Amino acid sequence: MIGMDVLEAIRTRRSIRKYDRNRDVEPEKLLACLEAARWAPSASNKQPWHFIVVRSKEKREELARLHPYGKFMAESPVVLVVLGDPQKHQKYFKCDPPIATQNFLLAAHAQGLGTCWMGVVDSSIEEPMRQLLGVPDNLRIICTVSVGYPAEKPEKTRQPLEELVSYESFGKGK
Amino acid sequence: MIGMDVLEAIRTRRSIRKYDRNRDVEPEKLLACLEAARWAPSASNKQPWHFIVVRSKEKREELARLHPYGKFMAESPVVLVVLGDPQKHQKYFKCDPPIATQNFLLAAHAQGLGTCWMGVVDSSIEEPMRQLLGVPDNLRIICTVSVGYPAEKPEKTRQPLEELVSYESFGKGK
Repeated sequence: MIGMDVLEAIRTRRSIRKYDRNRDVEPEKLLACLEAARWAPSASNKQPWHFIVVRSKEKREELARLHPYGKFMAESPVVLVVLGDPQKHQKYFKCDPPIATQNFLLAAHAQGLGTCWMGVVDSSIEEPMRQLLGVPDNLRIICTVSVGYPAEKPEKTRQPLEELVSYESFGKGK
Repeated sequence: MIGMDVLEAIRTRRSIRKYDRNRDVEPEKLLACLEAARWAPSASNKQPWHFIVVRSKEKREELARLHPYGKFMAESPVVLVVLGDPQKHQKYFKCDPPIATQNFLLAAHAQGLGTCWMGVVDSSIEEPMRQLLGVPDNLRIICTVSVGYPAEKPEKTRQPLEELVSYESFGKGK
């Protein structure tokens, strides 16, 4: 396993949309990512999440067809589908699964894997995905994550910190 | 700065509700946490977030009074208030700020700081907080995070991975 400092992992992670088609994802690396997701904080420790690991080429191709931004799911060797469980926490079933997903992304990057996170907010995507993956009606599909070895090194910009942070009251500088 | 492996940081982070009252949070450590938040992924890179750093004792005491689970905000030397911006992304202004917040928590833990995340989902809490911190009507208050040096070492349990993960279809084991 490749280790990485947490601040470096956070700073150097990028969304990866091109994958090395000749390199599969080792099961032990995937397990480490899922283990990282499991340790995310959640409101009242309810852990209102579930993860489906999709490796089947047919299913990945179908997911790629369904998601308007997710063509590359057909080419990443793994797709993670993240579910939220309103019965475990009615208020946080949409908030807590993304926290776990971020842990997954960081653990993947620390191990040399690339990921791209795609939200699923429209029922026009969610319902056919539900059919494809046998997701029960009591669970919601929150997002999908493509996973594989990166075949690109994208740049990314961020707003400067000064525009994002206030002190004591909104809009007040340091 | 104390460095920490990302997988270790994820696994060993805990919600901290008791803080060392004699130890303040160094500004450079706080900046590193905010910088980590800034590098979180967001839908279409819209970064629909803003952060208010509250050190004022009076404001922390008022926040502690307002939040039903947040008494310890009066005793943590810093409270971070995380805002979402629906004008930057209407669909993801509630989802993306938590992703940035998780980066903040991990960066804090990697530097020896403790945090506790408290969601703000009720308007009965949000509106008086809005008044207290001068938050404009076009922004939403997503959560607060207490920050300080830990004065406790809580244990935490998680569901086993086997119950949380399916393969290819929901409910299917490996």
